[in-house]
Amino acid sequence: MQHLLTLENLDHATITRLLDRAERFRVEGAPRDLLAGCTVLTLFFEHSTRTRTSFVLASKRLGADTLNFDLTHSSTSKGESLLDTLHTLEAMHLDALVVRHNENGMPAYLAGHANSDVAVINAGDGTHAHPTQGLLDALTIRQRRPDFENLRIAICGDIRHSRVARSDVQAFHALGSHDIRLCAPATMLPESLDEFPGSNTTEDFDAALADADVVIMLRIQKERMAAAQFPEAADYHAHYGLDTRRLALAAKNCQVLHPGPINRGIEIAPEVADGPQSRILDQVANGVATRMAVLAELLAARS
Amino acid sequence: MQHLLTLENLDHATITRLLDRAERFRVEGAPRDLLAGCTVLTLFFEHSTRTRTSFVLASKRLGADTLNFDLTHSSTSKGESLLDTLHTLEAMHLDALVVRHNENGMPAYLAGHANSDVAVINAGDGTHAHPTQGLLDALTIRQRRPDFENLRIAICGDIRHSRVARSDVQAFHALGSHDIRLCAPATMLPESLDEFPGSNTTEDFDAALADADVVIMLRIQKERMAAAQFPEAADYHAHYGLDTRRLALAAKNCQVLHPGPINRGIEIAPEVADGPQSRILDQVANGVATRMAVLAELLAARS
Amino acid sequence: MQHLLTLENLDHATITRLLDRAERFRVEGAPRDLLAGCTVLTLFFEHSTRTRTSFVLASKRLGADTLNFDLTHSSTSKGESLLDTLHTLEAMHLDALVVRHNENGMPAYLAGHANSDVAVINAGDGTHAHPTQGLLDALTIRQRRPDFENLRIAICGDIRHSRVARSDVQAFHALGSHDIRLCAPATMLPESLDEFPGSNTTEDFDAALADADVVIMLRIQKERMAAAQFPEAADYHAHYGLDTRRLALAAKNCQVLHPGPINRGIEIAPEVADGPQSRILDQVANGVATRMAVLAELLAARS
Repeated sequence: MQHLLTLENLDHATITRLLDRAERFRVEGAPRDLLAGCTVLTLFFEHSTRTRTSFVLASKRLGADTLNFDLTHSSTSKGESLLDTLHTLEAMHLDALVVRHNENGMPAYLAGHANSDVAVINAGDGTHAHPTQGLLDALTIRQRRPDFENLRIAICGDIRHSRVARSDVQAFHALGSHDIRLCAPATMLPESLDEFPGSNTTEDFDAALADADVVIMLRIQKERMAAAQFPEAADYHAHYGLDTRRLALAAKNCQVLHPGPINRGIEIAPEVADGPQSRILDQVANGVATRMAVLAELLAARS
Repeated sequence: MQHLLTLENLDHATITRLLDRAERFRVEGAPRDLLAGCTVLTLFFEHSTRTRTSFVLASKRLGADTLNFDLTHSSTSKGESLLDTLHTLEAMHLDALVVRHNENGMPAYLAGHANSDVAVINAGDGTHAHPTQGLLDALTIRQRRPDFENLRIAICGDIRHSRVARSDVQAFHALGSHDIRLCAPATMLPESLDEFPGSNTTEDFDAALADADVVIMLRIQKERMAAAQFPEAADYHAHYGLDTRRLALAAKNCQVLHPGPINRGIEIAPEVADGPQSRILDQVANGVATRMAVLAELLAARS
Repeated sequence: MQHLLTLENLDHATITRLLDRAERFRVEGAPRDLLAGCTVLTLFFEHSTRTRTSFVLASKRLGADTLNFDLTHSSTSKGESLLDTLHTLEAMHLDALVVRHNENGMPAYLAGHANSDVAVINAGDGTHAHPTQGLLDALTIRQRRPDFENLRIAICGDIRHSRVARSDVQAFHALGSHDIRLCAPATMLPESLDEFPGSNTTEDFDAALADADVVIMLRIQKERMAAAQFPEAADYHAHYGLDTRRLALAAKNCQVLHPGPINRGIEIAPEVADGPQSRILDQVANGVATRMAVLAELLAARS
């Protein structure tokens, strides 16, 4: 495993190994010198302070040096091509590039053109994949329910445009899930289920929630709400927002996840986000541990 | 002591312990691994490269990891609430948040809502408090004159809106001072002396300077000068600027302080800022040592 | 040697010592604690992610702490003078300031006004000097051809405004070169050769290339092309762009250098930039090693 670009082809054993390592890091901490001498560079073409911070913390906690490459004023704005930037960074002997880009496939494109053994980690590309999010969501669920084959999982929100939903489904399916309910208004449902193994779709939120063991709410964008005929956030909330009343439709200890940042009162009510079934802050903590596990997996041999 | 939000309630012994530690760090240096494994995050809602750099250096010199949270493009601009940001950062297991905000009380608000044992350090909030500045100014003065009970201290400038003046007065008063002269045009004097124990006010700069052992000049903002009927900087300087002639009114070895950055030729003449009585650069050096002492006090037990 | 401001006065022995050290760092790596306890601050008044990243990596790989001073919102924008910023940074006990500025001589001005033993490293000032680029270019050439006294070196592009060209020529001349051909349209040739020892000028690119052992192509700016009567990039490329056909005029194993970022299809054709004679990525790798050598030379005694 040189890169982490998608979860599409990762099998049960590989994902389990990564999650086991992340769990160990979370519980026992990690050796501060595991990646001493390694350099991790974050290359974000979309802003995301949370995800960037999570990767930087994960790197530092393993002893790696970190660098943020600020692209706002970088050479790419002087007309340097992305591949020239890649090769320049490789020549500086970086060990990992953590890449976020608004276009699908850009991390894979960089990985495919790398000359060296640099590890490219996809931190989210377009609507395609967000593999560390998929892993950290699987870790979070597994901490309470390791029996993925029995789980009823509802994912609700803008599935069509969500890289989180794609990576989540691929992780859960690899771990054995086959009852994954993708729920959204029609304009936000995927046009094909090719990227969503083990899933089915519904526009009926109550049906999706029935006896669910896990509910994952996705962040909704205002523009998309309007396109789905919900001019007001309150309308969306009335139809697809998770509140206490609706959560009661799910199984007794149903876990509630959200990749954050949350829109309080839109896709999720505050009393649910802050309630006892919410795993949202566990997701954040698991995110750092998961990224540590990924970095350790990809880089530990070389430090 | 979990947080440092204000100096209002700190007693003589606590302040002295912090200053002693800062002095030791300045003279002897500090163990590079005192805070190894700790993470300090700077969360600045107002720009201040100097103060941020001082905190970052202090953290690094004790072996802590540091992170700047860039709020310009952070989730708070996507509508994430400040408390959600706080809880997200806590879930990432940060040890200290160094917070600057233009609203009074925001660091205390965050400290009051923290779920974990994160230490919140106020790096300046509105007109309320700037506790590390108060401590470093006390340290600077003490290096030459430890007898605070005997000192005549003049503070001149926009006292009303100055968090530096408030924290300075509270530190000096706790250390025994009772002759603190707040000097400004009427529009810049405080409406009440509740937050300024041991102080009196005057509009007469010469009177404030008479036999003073310490003069602290505050940075003046152009907007405020105009409101005080000084349309030109030269007018302000003529009435409230510290030059050599005026400094001669003070005691022989009167120390001159300024929190920086200075406005040369407005509140302070270059020959005074760069002269033998100026402690301005000592304040900067003491600032790093003071922040090291605060971080060590709040975090050393946990590293 | 306290500062590195220009290569103008460095002799053969000094440059050779620096290049030997850089070569050793590149081949053998460097002790990770050589500069432990030192702090290197980058102070860039012009954006340059590549050069800044190279200096930061060099510092980290020797164990120094690094800080970027973001001037966009710094006190200099509040009217603090550059010298006040310098003295403030000195008071914080920084060991090195890496300075880039669009005005000639600004790093030397700061070095001349430093009160402490801080090392000022010029990372490029106006059209004046870019000494680490000169050194890394010399190192790159020397790895294949250490006999500078025999080399025919062509430098092509906007020589007049190029700090790279000045520092390159000064390095090569100190190492023995005396056949350095500066080639450009008339508007881009220097008005005097005082700063270009061992050089001659020509507007004829083919003549400059004849039997050259080294060709250094400089990045060209669109505004300057227009002033030189080349309204279109294609016109410039036809006259002064290095392509395979032109490169055949040079000596058999002629090395091709470019300080980057390259303008593909303008001053250099992709097949040359990516071809077997290109040393462009070696320059990047040598850049980090050279900056490590400079930092070690200036700071190692004090860590």
